[in-house]
Amino acid sequence: MLVMAYTETALIPGITVAGASPELMAYTPPLDAELVHAGRIITLDNIAMTSEAIPTPGLITRAAITLSDFREFYVDAGNKIPPFVPHYRVGNGPGADVRTGKAVPWAKQIIENARKVGKEIASQSEYVVIGETIPAGTTTALGVLLAMGMDINNYTSSSMPDNPQSLKTSVVQEGLKKAGINGQCDPLKAIEAVGDPMMAATIGLVQGAQGIPIILAGGTQMAAVAILLSKMSDLSKFDLALSTTRWIVEDSTSSLFGILKGGNVNIPVIVANLSFARSKLPGLLAYEKGYVKEGVGAGGLASATILKGVPKVKIEDTVESMYSKMVGQ
Amino acid sequence: MLVMAYTETALIPGITVAGASPELMAYTPPLDAELVHAGRIITLDNIAMTSEAIPTPGLITRAAITLSDFREFYVDAGNKIPPFVPHYRVGNGPGADVRTGKAVPWAKQIIENARKVGKEIASQSEYVVIGETIPAGTTTALGVLLAMGMDINNYTSSSMPDNPQSLKTSVVQEGLKKAGINGQCDPLKAIEAVGDPMMAATIGLVQGAQGIPIILAGGTQMAAVAILLSKMSDLSKFDLALSTTRWIVEDSTSSLFGILKGGNVNIPVIVANLSFARSKLPGLLAYEKGYVKEGVGAGGLASATILKGVPKVKIEDTVESMYSKMVGQ
Repeated sequence: MLVMAYTETALIPGITVAGASPELMAYTPPLDAELVHAGRIITLDNIAMTSEAIPTPGLITRAAITLSDFREFYVDAGNKIPPFVPHYRVGNGPGADVRTGKAVPWAKQIIENARKVGKEIASQSEYVVIGETIPAGTTTALGVLLAMGMDINNYTSSSMPDNPQSLKTSVVQEGLKKAGINGQCDPLKAIEAVGDPMMAATIGLVQGAQGIPIILAGGTQMAAVAILLSKMSDLSKFDLALSTTRWIVEDSTSSLFGILKGGNVNIPVIVANLSFARSKLPGLLAYEKGYVKEGVGAGGLASATILKGVPKVKIEDTVESMYSKMVGQ
Repeated sequence: MLVMAYTETALIPGITVAGASPELMAYTPPLDAELVHAGRIITLDNIAMTSEAIPTPGLITRAAITLSDFREFYVDAGNKIPPFVPHYRVGNGPGADVRTGKAVPWAKQIIENARKVGKEIASQSEYVVIGETIPAGTTTALGVLLAMGMDINNYTSSSMPDNPQSLKTSVVQEGLKKAGINGQCDPLKAIEAVGDPMMAATIGLVQGAQGIPIILAGGTQMAAVAILLSKMSDLSKFDLALSTTRWIVEDSTSSLFGILKGGNVNIPVIVANLSFARSKLPGLLAYEKGYVKEGVGAGGLASATILKGVPKVKIEDTVESMYSKMVGQ
């Protein structure tokens, strides 16, 4: 399941590189979904790309999909622009800028809708892997963790090598102040004030899928979801794991394990040890320099595909070959 | 492909019986989609039903789906409530009451979006069947035909045995007056003023699917779509047919062939000769008394399934058995 959402937080200058420009930012989630589903983008006719351009981690997800037999489900938790991909719709538009302190006042409705979708999909599945695509999602992750009183500054990750931690913290603090939150706040209120629609949808999907194994595919954002969930449901009743990429685990500017530990969430973490060090394309080599790291369920889908018996080099080679074609090399 | 939409025209008292009550009217399209896709409704937890209740024609579509190997695609052209079924989204909410004369000012955008979806689906299909679910759709059909200057009063069908033609005509006339239309109007303007989002989406889907055989599954509403399309595209370049039920063709209060002839549209019409005369359930027997007649692509899906070699009695028996279970008999 790929959960798509948008938050106006993404328009704060310097907060994310997920999106080529402010105008194109809201296209990131639908284009990711189209790339994973169809192998090409549909909503925009063409995006000029050079081999220097750093591709979306959705390329890894797409490679994993083509090398395995996963069925795909797409969930619009709060897109600004719908994707040209069949999808469930559990939300009602983008989340607001977290500085307003009113990021997703309709979070409860999203959770309830997503629960039905999770139940429906789980009823026909052996296990599920849940990924996300939302620009600025690490900022909202920081938001909910701080709202719940966790001391995790410098723990959340970023799509940039120079993690703009102080900007993210000040943005979140502004939202917390507006919302009148200055201590421990319950998880739903945290999402409503400084979270994003993706979190609400993912929580609902997991609750609905209870009974089968569930892999949260993502880094510090999915860790935040796991912590939120642990305060809303009894985690011991879920067969839950988190799976991400090597780039997240090796990121010195954040700490996935620190977040999980701080949140008292003890779940298995599966790491896909992907590497693009062998790549001939600067855009993929950038992953080895700390760009992007994770997203669109890349780590989790890669792990699940490797567990199905596909060698990791085959995923890497497929990404190399797909991206070569895209940039015309 | 099932095209879903809603128009506030449906709230005009006496205009339609598609929907148990005004509050539930907007649920008709999503519940139809859920019934066809999952065999049960999901958005509402339960609707109490007696065997006197007249079921949606979506039951016929569901029976056809379970007896054949069609893949299903759902398209939200303008729902008020999204279905718990994966779907494409080509619109942006319901159409307005046609009496405003501004029913779907964003129709052009719907057509353009739907074109992409039609192309995408056609690229992986041998042929396509396109059905619709929209309450009050025969009124908007009358609307666009009158807007284009056709003399077709008393030609469009209804879900009721006593077709409220004069009410429908007066409603449409009010809209035409507001829009300043009093002669021949181009098809896009007709939809924008007194049409509905379903028409726009279906036109776009057909245009996008050009190149493979296309069956419009419906009665007088789909005839109106064919006429609109004929004025926007060269019909001779399409491999297009219309397919509907016996109940539409035998309806003495309307004339499918009269509409097609009046619109100079000469396409094959395939009729599914379904009958519920053998039914033990009053709700299904009502179809033989002129209730419902068509919708949710019932006639077209039944025809296509019969063409695949499934006997028509098998479709009727499957509907009988499914509906028996639903009403607990």
